[in-house]
Amino acid sequence: MIARTRRALAISASIVVGVQLVEAQTVAVTGGTVIDATGRPPIADGVVVLKDGRITAVGPAASTTVPQGATRIDARGKYVIPGLMDSNLHLFLNLDTETLVKYEDRYHEIVVEAAQIALKTGQTTVFDTWGPRGALSKARAMINAGQVQGSRIYYAGNIIGFGGPFSADFRAGAAPHLSKAFVKRINDQWEEGSGRELMWMPPDSLRVAMRKYAALDHDFLKFGASGHVEMFFISFSPRAMRIIVEEGHRLGKTVQAHVTSPESIDMAVDAGVDILTHGDISGPIYPIPMETLQKMAAKGTAVSSLATTKRARDAQIKHAPNGVLTPYMVVAAKNIENMVKAGVRLMVSTDAGIEHPVMLAESPTLAVDTVDARVKLGEGHFNALVGFEEAGMAPMEILKSATSNVAKSYKLDRDLGTLEVGKRADLVILDADPLASARNYRSIRSVIKDGKVVDLAALPAAPIISSIKVAK
Amino acid sequence: MIARTRRALAISASIVVGVQLVEAQTVAVTGGTVIDATGRPPIADGVVVLKDGRITAVGPAASTTVPQGATRIDARGKYVIPGLMDSNLHLFLNLDTETLVKYEDRYHEIVVEAAQIALKTGQTTVFDTWGPRGALSKARAMINAGQVQGSRIYYAGNIIGFGGPFSADFRAGAAPHLSKAFVKRINDQWEEGSGRELMWMPPDSLRVAMRKYAALDHDFLKFGASGHVEMFFISFSPRAMRIIVEEGHRLGKTVQAHVTSPESIDMAVDAGVDILTHGDISGPIYPIPMETLQKMAAKGTAVSSLATTKRARDAQIKHAPNGVLTPYMVVAAKNIENMVKAGVRLMVSTDAGIEHPVMLAESPTLAVDTVDARVKLGEGHFNALVGFEEAGMAPMEILKSATSNVAKSYKLDRDLGTLEVGKRADLVILDADPLASARNYRSIRSVIKDGKVVDLAALPAAPIISSIKVAK
Amino acid sequence: MIARTRRALAISASIVVGVQLVEAQTVAVTGGTVIDATGRPPIADGVVVLKDGRITAVGPAASTTVPQGATRIDARGKYVIPGLMDSNLHLFLNLDTETLVKYEDRYHEIVVEAAQIALKTGQTTVFDTWGPRGALSKARAMINAGQVQGSRIYYAGNIIGFGGPFSADFRAGAAPHLSKAFVKRINDQWEEGSGRELMWMPPDSLRVAMRKYAALDHDFLKFGASGHVEMFFISFSPRAMRIIVEEGHRLGKTVQAHVTSPESIDMAVDAGVDILTHGDISGPIYPIPMETLQKMAAKGTAVSSLATTKRARDAQIKHAPNGVLTPYMVVAAKNIENMVKAGVRLMVSTDAGIEHPVMLAESPTLAVDTVDARVKLGEGHFNALVGFEEAGMAPMEILKSATSNVAKSYKLDRDLGTLEVGKRADLVILDADPLASARNYRSIRSVIKDGKVVDLAALPAAPIISSIKVAK
Amino acid sequence: MIARTRRALAISASIVVGVQLVEAQTVAVTGGTVIDATGRPPIADGVVVLKDGRITAVGPAASTTVPQGATRIDARGKYVIPGLMDSNLHLFLNLDTETLVKYEDRYHEIVVEAAQIALKTGQTTVFDTWGPRGALSKARAMINAGQVQGSRIYYAGNIIGFGGPFSADFRAGAAPHLSKAFVKRINDQWEEGSGRELMWMPPDSLRVAMRKYAALDHDFLKFGASGHVEMFFISFSPRAMRIIVEEGHRLGKTVQAHVTSPESIDMAVDAGVDILTHGDISGPIYPIPMETLQKMAAKGTAVSSLATTKRARDAQIKHAPNGVLTPYMVVAAKNIENMVKAGVRLMVSTDAGIEHPVMLAESPTLAVDTVDARVKLGEGHFNALVGFEEAGMAPMEILKSATSNVAKSYKLDRDLGTLEVGKRADLVILDADPLASARNYRSIRSVIKDGKVVDLAALPAAPIISSIKVAK
Repeated sequence: MIARTRRALAISASIVVGVQLVEAQTVAVTGGTVIDATGRPPIADGVVVLKDGRITAVGPAASTTVPQGATRIDARGKYVIPGLMDSNLHLFLNLDTETLVKYEDRYHEIVVEAAQIALKTGQTTVFDTWGPRGALSKARAMINAGQVQGSRIYYAGNIIGFGGPFSADFRAGAAPHLSKAFVKRINDQWEEGSGRELMWMPPDSLRVAMRKYAALDHDFLKFGASGHVEMFFISFSPRAMRIIVEEGHRLGKTVQAHVTSPESIDMAVDAGVDILTHGDISGPIYPIPMETLQKMAAKGTAVSSLATTKRARDAQIKHAPNGVLTPYMVVAAKNIENMVKAGVRLMVSTDAGIEHPVMLAESPTLAVDTVDARVKLGEGHFNALVGFEEAGMAPMEILKSATSNVAKSYKLDRDLGTLEVGKRADLVILDADPLASARNYRSIRSVIKDGKVVDLAALPAAPIISSIKVAK
Repeated sequence: MIARTRRALAISASIVVGVQLVEAQTVAVTGGTVIDATGRPPIADGVVVLKDGRITAVGPAASTTVPQGATRIDARGKYVIPGLMDSNLHLFLNLDTETLVKYEDRYHEIVVEAAQIALKTGQTTVFDTWGPRGALSKARAMINAGQVQGSRIYYAGNIIGFGGPFSADFRAGAAPHLSKAFVKRINDQWEEGSGRELMWMPPDSLRVAMRKYAALDHDFLKFGASGHVEMFFISFSPRAMRIIVEEGHRLGKTVQAHVTSPESIDMAVDAGVDILTHGDISGPIYPIPMETLQKMAAKGTAVSSLATTKRARDAQIKHAPNGVLTPYMVVAAKNIENMVKAGVRLMVSTDAGIEHPVMLAESPTLAVDTVDARVKLGEGHFNALVGFEEAGMAPMEILKSATSNVAKSYKLDRDLGTLEVGKRADLVILDADPLASARNYRSIRSVIKDGKVVDLAALPAAPIISSIKVAK
Repeated sequence: MIARTRRALAISASIVVGVQLVEAQTVAVTGGTVIDATGRPPIADGVVVLKDGRITAVGPAASTTVPQGATRIDARGKYVIPGLMDSNLHLFLNLDTETLVKYEDRYHEIVVEAAQIALKTGQTTVFDTWGPRGALSKARAMINAGQVQGSRIYYAGNIIGFGGPFSADFRAGAAPHLSKAFVKRINDQWEEGSGRELMWMPPDSLRVAMRKYAALDHDFLKFGASGHVEMFFISFSPRAMRIIVEEGHRLGKTVQAHVTSPESIDMAVDAGVDILTHGDISGPIYPIPMETLQKMAAKGTAVSSLATTKRARDAQIKHAPNGVLTPYMVVAAKNIENMVKAGVRLMVSTDAGIEHPVMLAESPTLAVDTVDARVKLGEGHFNALVGFEEAGMAPMEILKSATSNVAKSYKLDRDLGTLEVGKRADLVILDADPLASARNYRSIRSVIKDGKVVDLAALPAAPIISSIKVAK
Repeated sequence: MIARTRRALAISASIVVGVQLVEAQTVAVTGGTVIDATGRPPIADGVVVLKDGRITAVGPAASTTVPQGATRIDARGKYVIPGLMDSNLHLFLNLDTETLVKYEDRYHEIVVEAAQIALKTGQTTVFDTWGPRGALSKARAMINAGQVQGSRIYYAGNIIGFGGPFSADFRAGAAPHLSKAFVKRINDQWEEGSGRELMWMPPDSLRVAMRKYAALDHDFLKFGASGHVEMFFISFSPRAMRIIVEEGHRLGKTVQAHVTSPESIDMAVDAGVDILTHGDISGPIYPIPMETLQKMAAKGTAVSSLATTKRARDAQIKHAPNGVLTPYMVVAAKNIENMVKAGVRLMVSTDAGIEHPVMLAESPTLAVDTVDARVKLGEGHFNALVGFEEAGMAPMEILKSATSNVAKSYKLDRDLGTLEVGKRADLVILDADPLASARNYRSIRSVIKDGKVVDLAALPAAPIISSIKVAK
């Protein structure tokens, strides 16, 4: 054990030094088992060569040349996979009044903190499917400019049709205890003209509103096919859904829908969405009909899934107040099994954000998230992978669910998702074989993003939320 | 004046006596201007002969024989029209806690009271589009058996997809102050298996639930295409709406949808409903697109409209808290104008029930219903007819909106809606010409239902709600 | 066992017949152990002679003549004690909205029902310390006139300074869901000019208000020395308390104070009250100081105590939400022990009323009242007697706490409370010795009130609340 | 006008320079009418000499020597009075959630901001009768050390018996929307062991708690004789009040009571308080009885009064929701008139703090504070002085109410309150005669505190709350 740890540290240290000195230097990861997430079998004693942020070679050592002068990373006995992805999380999930008030001008710093926690746990790319666009944009710019470390961020901004944090979709109850000016200011950061008023609109008005909104700098669009607090209702007519999809696609953006019931799922599929956000959630009673699942498989509609472990579901059944929340996950587990069988493309997702230590400690509802946590950023994706395993998904498919499936569904597979020449140089080195057990995804040794080894111990660099201490 | 009144009393008295003595006697209304609501021009000095509860002859005195021995009702200088109808009211609208608790076993008596107020104001037939089916059934049986007087009742029971009185669709706030047992008992009376849980159902389950529910003894079905308290959302997917329509039609029942937004209207039309309940309500901002109106006209989808007078809308704008409720009616007025132009079949409707005198006196929201009241049973339909006039509807169309249009839309035109041979002997005698001014519908002299003159002064016979006194 | 039961029935039957036939007939209870509650030792083979509703002789068989022609009740092997009393209950405790609405005109019938449950369980006299005066007055008149059976009732009406059922002192939360007219009507029944507004009054105004209020037909007065929902606050200044006491005493009425904290107790004692209602309740933390207890003993201030069994307190600790309610009883138990030591005159009391079966089944707070119930009318007084025993009270003192102590504190000892010549002919015959164990008070064989044997099986005669069935 | 303004600036400039250069220099205010607030007649052409922060000479120019080298301030045509005082304000009154969260570590800066607004408007000394002791202590230390400008602060910390900002005494409704940890942290800053739990305590426990609490570094003590949100109730028994007074006096601290009803006032007077905080507030109905007023006059119990102008009361009657707040002030006006007649020592007070511009703009309740504002720091004291004038107080008494009466009541008259030799060199120079009209107190030309001229234009120096802009 000690020997292994020492070597690991040595690797990290040498690389970091190397990276800092010679920015554009070539790096070669050698000796490990390379699993490229294309579906091809693992390459024993494989080599991955990285240069200028891209993969320039992948293959067996026997047939793959390591360029001279390249920094070598010894991955013998280890497993090399593409950087992990979360297809659905929320880098800023902190809707508690205290955070919203106290850090009003620093939401982007919290986004950075979250992006660093994600990166530290192997996620080189994340898809933020709901959040304050301004702060996300600012944080992404800082990360992309190299000012701060962090996962590569793609974001949607608001969920079209949803009100902001202090609306009926989230925490309307707090609004009377705050100034109207503050409430409006915060809600506006999320809504940006895409709030609940859209549900009143006939097609013409909706088209105008969507054309304006879609032109903002989001990477993709997301709309509510159904309600959030009230998950049973449907938000948009079929023709309204189609308009939203069209306006996203017109600008080359993928479009996904928040869905929570069998019928909202079916309608969103018909409307032509690329992704169903938590498309495995169909409410407390009825699983998704096979007819709908087959349609999804046929059309290639992908699903970001909120897979949970049985242990987590049992804890929810036991601890949740009245067991109200639990059934969703029980039904969802059934849906996932059916999707695996129907051949629906599944992606790891979590809805995760930085859990506020104090809020977590105080809330009986949040506290169920302590057994195989799902919403806890940095934990949720590991548990989701185990959840897929329990649902009967094949090992290689599990890997793809957190890598190539995500890239493909978001139409980013030219750059991301596999270890292939030309792709971005994002990879994770594991101590244990992920194809042997999904629990092995936790055995992260190193994370390389854009060809550079990440100093994991340094993350998060300037924590705001995650470092808050709970008073005894 | 005095002379006229005396004569009127004389007429009433003689008829009542006659009817009481000779049940099956033939009656002839003679000398009046007969407007038969078919669209044909009025017949001056017309005769309408009634026998065994049916119309046996209609025509000009010159060519119409009055059977020997017939009781004659002298209608000289008066106007004879078919019995009026309200296409959308609620004979039991008393959701206040006190009424629900105090009269738990007597809801049917309140329904009778309402049916008598309706009859007293010229409405020989009414369509109850939401209420406790058991009480409605009981009241109807009493009326049909001749035990009590009252409008002829057709009813829907629950609005499919809605919860009962103490659900989020109505008065959830009162529930914590009542026993769970009572809340369940009352909600069950409305829901009968057709509540909010239906919104979660995929097609197969919905089909089963609907087949069971549709078989109850309602005359027609009504479902929520959109929400009630939250009018912006959509309740059912297109395929779910179609299932509901199919299951109603399968049993020969008309099907209507509660609609409140441009998109819920469009979806309900596409689903094939017969009637859009308050199909003129499209929310606070956007009128119904012409495209939808044209589709309605083409398919023959009828609209029960909540027409209001300008005076009423102005009062709402002035008195309503924050003016929140008003815009709906302002937009609705625009919709009605557009429907008239597009040729949509419109029907008088009110949502009316017996307004509780104390609740009315105390409530700032209800109190706006005092200027050209809409929801006040016995008043609302008169004002709606004036509202249609203000919207530019032709005089003959206005008459049809409260008679033949309703019968046709509910597929009851074989029996009801016009003064034609073979139809039920329901008619109203007016002192003033309804085609000259819609305000003249108030000038009711006599009401004849099933061939018998109604003793208007005796109604309501045993008032429970309408007679409550407001303490000073 | 069978033999015993048969004999008992035989006794009952013969007496009832006798009573019905010969109203003024003399009755002699013979052969039993008579414990007269004066403190004197029990009389073995004692005789109690009753005539015209009074006791005409008490003593050992050897020296006591049974008048010729007297109906004899054979009490051999049994124990004869005075009729039991509850010094603090609420015959109408049903503040749930449903009861208040549904039985608005029949509260007096519920009072009768309660008085019959009380009588059935040995309580020949009860003191209602808070309720609707009108209904109490009506019920008492019916009982006193012999129209219905029931405990002899003495009542206070409102607690001076308290608002009615829908005020902040009780269930203000329900008010917004009811008409203002109803809320006012109900609150007025309790308040009658003695509500919260009295707390604003300076002495002169209070004197005027109290003089008017005290003249109503209550038997005694009760004021709030402290709050009800908010038990920590003090309601009246010392001089205001004195005015209330004076105005009661001026009319020969005893005056008691609702107290809930050490300081409200001390102030009420200083103000000269006759009785401290639940004077053992001093809040969740601090017992009553010995200085105050000694003052009470010295002045003869009596305490109606809410004694509980240890089993009940343990259940409360375990089941009460957050354990909030429990500590009061834990502290109260300590206070009772101290009072016993200090020689304070203690009386059995319960705060009991008819527990609504549905409300009891549904309420997690009420449900703690199922282990050695206190608030359940007909049960509470038995458990309170056991509570006193557990607190170390001597057997004879326990008997006095439910008989002679109550009579004395309410200044009714000329007529009530002991088995002495001249007193009212109220007595209870027990199968087991109450001085051997306080649990034996439950072994009621017969109850005699005003010299007549009560037909226990027939009570309550026309139950409204207690007979309600809980739906499964 | 221009000439006058220029001269004023010249005076200010020269003085400020002088002060900055020669700290301990002697200053002489000459030529003005000196009103020393002792009650003696004004001194025309008077001289006040200040040295080392004290007054070293006061008198007519004819008989008062101006030391050589003294900086002269020409006050010809002006009026020189002692520095004004507010006997009851709240430098931190900002209980809105946003301020409490956002500036959690900077409350002391808000206190400084408030102390600067107070100083700018002539108040050289203020008495903070409720606030977070820690922040007040910190701010005072900064002011006393000369690090920042500001009124001289004396403070009480909590109101004994009151809970903190998120308790039922203030804004309990916001608590569920915040973390328990934050709520506790904030409440603790106010309570420091002196919260609501004290109302449960018997004498011994209260003595212990008070001895501990009184030893904190407050300047004086204040307890709640009555409730805050619920102003009708009494918080402490007579003996409890006496203990609080004794423990304050034992440490040489004055003790005052928050009072709101006739009886809380009477009890506090009997308990021996030095000051009745807003002792003119006796609720919505009843004025304070003359008997109580006479007792106050006899014992020398001072009253910090919330005097208002008639204009302000009329605005409250008109704008306040339901007129609920108004009656207090109408009754208070009557009380003030009676106090003037009875010879009760009255002091200007306001309850003022920094009004948050956004909260003021949004709140219908606060907005009544825009006509002759009372709670608006920097305005309220001017309006209160006019209120006294309207109540019939003599001009010299009005001056004393904001100067010597305050010093005397707080037992600080050795140092403060009059222009007499030996007193602190605090004075205000007015352009217009305050004895001619109370409105002239607004005509502040210069403020001198501790012998130094204040640069009024520079205050507040670093505003946090008062400078917030309201968005359109």
